[in-house]
Amino acid sequence: MGEAILSDIFTNVLIPATAVVGIAFALLQWVLVSKVRLSPGEADAEGTGKNGYSEYLIDEEEGLNDHNVVVKCAEIQRAISEDALIRATAGASSFLFTEYQYVGIFMAIFAILIFLFLGSVEGFSTKSQPCTYSKDKTCKPALANAIFSTLSFLLGGITSVVSGFLGMKIATYANARTTLEARKGVGKAFIIAFRSGAVMGFLLAANGLLILFISINLFKLYYGDDWEGLFEAITGYGLGGSSMALFGRVGGGIYTKAADVGADLVGKVERNIPEDDPRNPAVIADNVGDNVGDIAGMGSDLFGSYAESSCAALVVASISSFGINHDLTAMLYPLLISSMGIIVCLITTLFATDFFEIKAVKEIEPSLKRQLIISTILMTFGIAIVSWVALPSTFTIFNFGVQKSVKNWELFFCVAIGLWAGLVIGFITEYYTSNAYSPVQDVADSCRTGAATNVIFGLALGYKSVIIPIFAIAVSIFVSFSLAAMYGIAVAALGMLSTIATGLAIDAYGPISDNAGGIAEMAGMSHRIRERTDALDAAGNTTAAIGKGFAIGSAALVSLALFGAFVSRAEISTVDVLTPKVFIGLLVGAMLPYWFSAMTMKSVGSAALKMVEEVRRQFNTIPGLMEGTARPDYTNCVKISTDASIKEMIPPGALVMLTPLVVGTLFGVETLSGVLAGSLVSGVQIAISASNTGGAWDNAKKYIEAGASEHARLLGPKGSDPHKAAVIGDTIGDPLKDTSGPSLNILIKLMAVESLVFAPFFATHGGLLFKLF
Amino acid sequence: MGEAILSDIFTNVLIPATAVVGIAFALLQWVLVSKVRLSPGEADAEGTGKNGYSEYLIDEEEGLNDHNVVVKCAEIQRAISEDALIRATAGASSFLFTEYQYVGIFMAIFAILIFLFLGSVEGFSTKSQPCTYSKDKTCKPALANAIFSTLSFLLGGITSVVSGFLGMKIATYANARTTLEARKGVGKAFIIAFRSGAVMGFLLAANGLLILFISINLFKLYYGDDWEGLFEAITGYGLGGSSMALFGRVGGGIYTKAADVGADLVGKVERNIPEDDPRNPAVIADNVGDNVGDIAGMGSDLFGSYAESSCAALVVASISSFGINHDLTAMLYPLLISSMGIIVCLITTLFATDFFEIKAVKEIEPSLKRQLIISTILMTFGIAIVSWVALPSTFTIFNFGVQKSVKNWELFFCVAIGLWAGLVIGFITEYYTSNAYSPVQDVADSCRTGAATNVIFGLALGYKSVIIPIFAIAVSIFVSFSLAAMYGIAVAALGMLSTIATGLAIDAYGPISDNAGGIAEMAGMSHRIRERTDALDAAGNTTAAIGKGFAIGSAALVSLALFGAFVSRAEISTVDVLTPKVFIGLLVGAMLPYWFSAMTMKSVGSAALKMVEEVRRQFNTIPGLMEGTARPDYTNCVKISTDASIKEMIPPGALVMLTPLVVGTLFGVETLSGVLAGSLVSGVQIAISASNTGGAWDNAKKYIEAGASEHARLLGPKGSDPHKAAVIGDTIGDPLKDTSGPSLNILIKLMAVESLVFAPFFATHGGLLFKLF
Repeated sequence: MGEAILSDIFTNVLIPATAVVGIAFALLQWVLVSKVRLSPGEADAEGTGKNGYSEYLIDEEEGLNDHNVVVKCAEIQRAISEDALIRATAGASSFLFTEYQYVGIFMAIFAILIFLFLGSVEGFSTKSQPCTYSKDKTCKPALANAIFSTLSFLLGGITSVVSGFLGMKIATYANARTTLEARKGVGKAFIIAFRSGAVMGFLLAANGLLILFISINLFKLYYGDDWEGLFEAITGYGLGGSSMALFGRVGGGIYTKAADVGADLVGKVERNIPEDDPRNPAVIADNVGDNVGDIAGMGSDLFGSYAESSCAALVVASISSFGINHDLTAMLYPLLISSMGIIVCLITTLFATDFFEIKAVKEIEPSLKRQLIISTILMTFGIAIVSWVALPSTFTIFNFGVQKSVKNWELFFCVAIGLWAGLVIGFITEYYTSNAYSPVQDVADSCRTGAATNVIFGLALGYKSVIIPIFAIAVSIFVSFSLAAMYGIAVAALGMLSTIATGLAIDAYGPISDNAGGIAEMAGMSHRIRERTDALDAAGNTTAAIGKGFAIGSAALVSLALFGAFVSRAEISTVDVLTPKVFIGLLVGAMLPYWFSAMTMKSVGSAALKMVEEVRRQFNTIPGLMEGTARPDYTNCVKISTDASIKEMIPPGALVMLTPLVVGTLFGVETLSGVLAGSLVSGVQIAISASNTGGAWDNAKKYIEAGASEHARLLGPKGSDPHKAAVIGDTIGDPLKDTSGPSLNILIKLMAVESLVFAPFFATHGGLLFKLF
Repeated sequence: MGEAILSDIFTNVLIPATAVVGIAFALLQWVLVSKVRLSPGEADAEGTGKNGYSEYLIDEEEGLNDHNVVVKCAEIQRAISEDALIRATAGASSFLFTEYQYVGIFMAIFAILIFLFLGSVEGFSTKSQPCTYSKDKTCKPALANAIFSTLSFLLGGITSVVSGFLGMKIATYANARTTLEARKGVGKAFIIAFRSGAVMGFLLAANGLLILFISINLFKLYYGDDWEGLFEAITGYGLGGSSMALFGRVGGGIYTKAADVGADLVGKVERNIPEDDPRNPAVIADNVGDNVGDIAGMGSDLFGSYAESSCAALVVASISSFGINHDLTAMLYPLLISSMGIIVCLITTLFATDFFEIKAVKEIEPSLKRQLIISTILMTFGIAIVSWVALPSTFTIFNFGVQKSVKNWELFFCVAIGLWAGLVIGFITEYYTSNAYSPVQDVADSCRTGAATNVIFGLALGYKSVIIPIFAIAVSIFVSFSLAAMYGIAVAALGMLSTIATGLAIDAYGPISDNAGGIAEMAGMSHRIRERTDALDAAGNTTAAIGKGFAIGSAALVSLALFGAFVSRAEISTVDVLTPKVFIGLLVGAMLPYWFSAMTMKSVGSAALKMVEEVRRQFNTIPGLMEGTARPDYTNCVKISTDASIKEMIPPGALVMLTPLVVGTLFGVETLSGVLAGSLVSGVQIAISASNTGGAWDNAKKYIEAGASEHARLLGPKGSDPHKAAVIGDTIGDPLKDTSGPSLNILIKLMAVESLVFAPFFATHGGLLFKLF
């Protein structure tokens, strides 16, 4: 077996140290971003009263406004713009608070459920019990597991909420600063937007690692040598993180897309006013939505994936030779990989912010893509180092009842293949969603014959874009599964997520640029500045699609790893499709993503219908609104989005949260295994195709609008029939790519982690229906 | 064990006798339909010259034409109409001949492949060998299996082609007669359309049964007592039937939808001329498409399902006590069920054509639905009788290596639950696609805010409509699987298909009514007659959706039964999701329906683009076309559809046909099992949602057009903005509901039956890749 090179003490110092370095780096970036001064009265920038930076923004453009023929009119417009900017900043916080209130109630109820279900496994007995896997040893009572699982569930939930909230704060802080820097040039603006993204990326990655590390050490004070129980309880952390992410993604997704679709349908299509025009009553709701849906939702989502893949790896490791021999360094291998990831991403970030400088618009996208490639290459060496120093040369991994012998270089391959599969998925996603390549150009071309062919081509593109990512995932699964069983899958997922800090930075960069453009429009800044922010935004759109590809790919691996851990914990050694119990689970599981999507799509549709009617009503009944001399009633639109998202996130949330409980309790672990496998293999396809179809439509529209090639100019300009058809496609794609698509990641992960947490209960008391008959 | 009540001799007489009765009944209906005389010169009606009936149709409307202001113009229009009618009739035959030529080449190649693969199992040895299941007995050589499998493959293919061709002939024969009868009233027209559908239904059901029965008896001359080998060879019949169905559905689907989408996009949307107007250059291609896609394609598809479920049941029975004890009556239980089905459907048909008469438009749909209910109730008794007289009271069924004891009443439940699940699926499909209920009305309502919300709501509806059918299928699977293992599933599928004659009659009724309306329009008949055919067509639309629901539900059961038979034949006893080989199969299998749909959707889109350009070109360059004084170039449009469908059906066809061969040969039977299970559970969801989304959009458009309620009138009339949005939805739905959706049935069935046929090869030589490494 042998020992790891790295000593346990050094490991215990190294992990928190890198986490602290990550946090310090994030704060440094924040300081650099905050050097862009918005106004002298910065101190009260977040206040409820007069917001400093909007004043400053408008002042900058004063010179232009002077040329306006009607000075009076300009002044009123300015008042409206200011009002809009203040509300947009305050709106995101206020929505998140409302959302968190409701979610808080849910968390409390679910925490009680966890405690009751897990406590009942041994009838709330406080006596120690034989261990699950090593029957000859004594472990802590099931009641302790119930208490600590509940605690870690709450901890995961809170960390997720904090991650999302921080992300949102950073984004709203960075938006206006990016707009201001855009006056100095596209390179400066890019660096501000990217640094802001990095603040979020590093803060989330480092925070997640630190809290997980601290929790393990605190729980160890009670659990002592009972690592089996300790890491079983820790899985609650993943469940908490992911259930928050679900509500964040679904609630935020419905909010943002109801507002976006509503604003576009009336503003762009009917009234022919630009996007983000302050005359549009839904513009505030739209802007708020970008922050809560894309930023807070995505932050929670990726944090959830990270937490879950760590938990899945840890729980399998705890019953492998690492756990049995109490080999701490090897046990914490997953955390060491994440630590290495932070260091690698730190170096990678310097390539974007310090080593090179963007000088032209066309350098933006390559620069972002270079980030992914650099981090992947560096991380490959990083994984090799960690695998060499942290693992014994040979060890055994628990594999459904037997111990499988694995070598350290084999584990290296598992992590590395996950990492590289992520890159492949990212680039394939880019190929299918960027308008630099033929697939999106074909979709744009199909707009010549109207919206119907655009939709047909877009759907076909989405379906087709599934092929290579699925093969990439399949190969990763096959290799890592063959080399190191379910532990291999878990570390492959960790590999894909190891560069999460860079991934999140790139992801957050997109909505920040998008909002910077919105602020430029709202503040009535010059066309020149709007063009720069648009260029930043266009690159952000593609990288957002890449980010979604990563999120889906890692979700597939994570949920398979969790599935494996669940099956191990539920003490079943085969999941045989040739038994009716499993097969019907598989069939119904494959149906769940459709059920879930039906709910979220319809929610967006209904909320958008209400929004459209309200916006139309305001344009029709408020005199002077179109002329810009009257103020729209932003509040009503914000209220429609808020009410819709709070109300409509409950049914899909309930579907996901209750399915494992109901199936496990009534039908037992075999059927539940089928459901998990079915929803995994079906959900990943819909998630990829929905995201890419939506992304392609969005960029097909942008392709026609930008008119950068002969072909694009043939289809344009804005307002032409092909452009109108493209706008319809874009609108349809909104709920697909930002609500139902990305929520499906969470569906498949969450059901798996929930099953894992409740596995002790299902294994003891599950399958009531079959027991009765 | 006991003996069946029915003697073997009696069984051998009963089955062919009922088949002959079915054929006689079909001929009787034909005679009744043909009593509607089209013209005195009927004899040359199918000739290439002047077509009798179009003359006659026009004559009837002469009185109306007299009122036209410009008599000269009317005459030219009439000439165009006649020309269109003649071409439409001739076009369908000519396309089918072209299609069959290409398909014939494929059949020949694939027949050789079957022979080579299966022959190589024992190295083309002519020596007898030990049986697969009863190792102590001697069975016929593998070479015999290769020869007879090839023969039955060709036989199945030819039967399928003949079925499709007959259906098409009957439909084109009935179309104009239905139009003529519509002059006398809606009741008369309904009976003609329904009788024509019945001709097709009974002919197909009885033919399939008869040929299968004869083949079994002919093969028995060689095989003698080796029933294991005999029924293994017979499975080729299912493969032949289904592979023809694939090309029929895909080729026909691309043909019809390219023409339909192309004709609508220019004619209805841009030029604002009615559907089926002879001025539209694509009208002939559209009309031909209805006959080759909806009629010939569907006939082949359902015939394939029927053949496959019979084969699946027979092959399992041959290795159960029926086969081992050479209990002929019990062995032929699946065929006896089908025989009973013919008798039941015969009685049911009389309810529609003789016992009741339709007097008003609103009675059409209830009358068709009554057909389904009556046939299901009668068939339940029929199944009980057959199960009582044809089965021993107790027997054993092969269940993955062991023999499971089953009672005759348990088998009754298996068949009955399949039958009733079909009815449930049918009615749920109706609920989601008929505009009498709220789901479609909601979709229509969403057209108020444009095409984008219409599409979002339509997609959500399709996703939602999956839920209950999946539960119905899951319950059927669970019950029949638990009661009688894979044999239970196979007979459940047979139960769902036992009323196939009635199902096909209702299905075929739809396109016949549709085309009758088209002919009325082309022949320039009065508005009154067009209204009646429209009413017939509207009811047909809903029943077509019901038919598709049946087809998908039965395909799911059939392919599971085939999957079970394949697993048995490949001698694997578990398909464990927890092995990497199986899991990656599952994941990739779940992706295949997306890949396939991407190809078919894009094919339709591209062909429609070409069609649109051609139609636009003709409208722009042929002077007098819009005024009806010049003749459009129909031939060019027909050529575009023909070329597209022939060229584009090859890649999706190759994907389906090659996947089992490649996976089985390279990766082996475990991975192939995963692929089959994955594509089944994923494909059935897409198939249902695609069909229902398309059906709902179609009927939402019709809802607005008909304006039958206060709400509908609010959205209409034709040409209003909501109506335009509805037309876009309808157009998007066309490839979903008529090309990719229904083709997916065949994908899942065909891959399963192909695996079954090649199972002996895979079991011996499969998994090359794993053997090498």
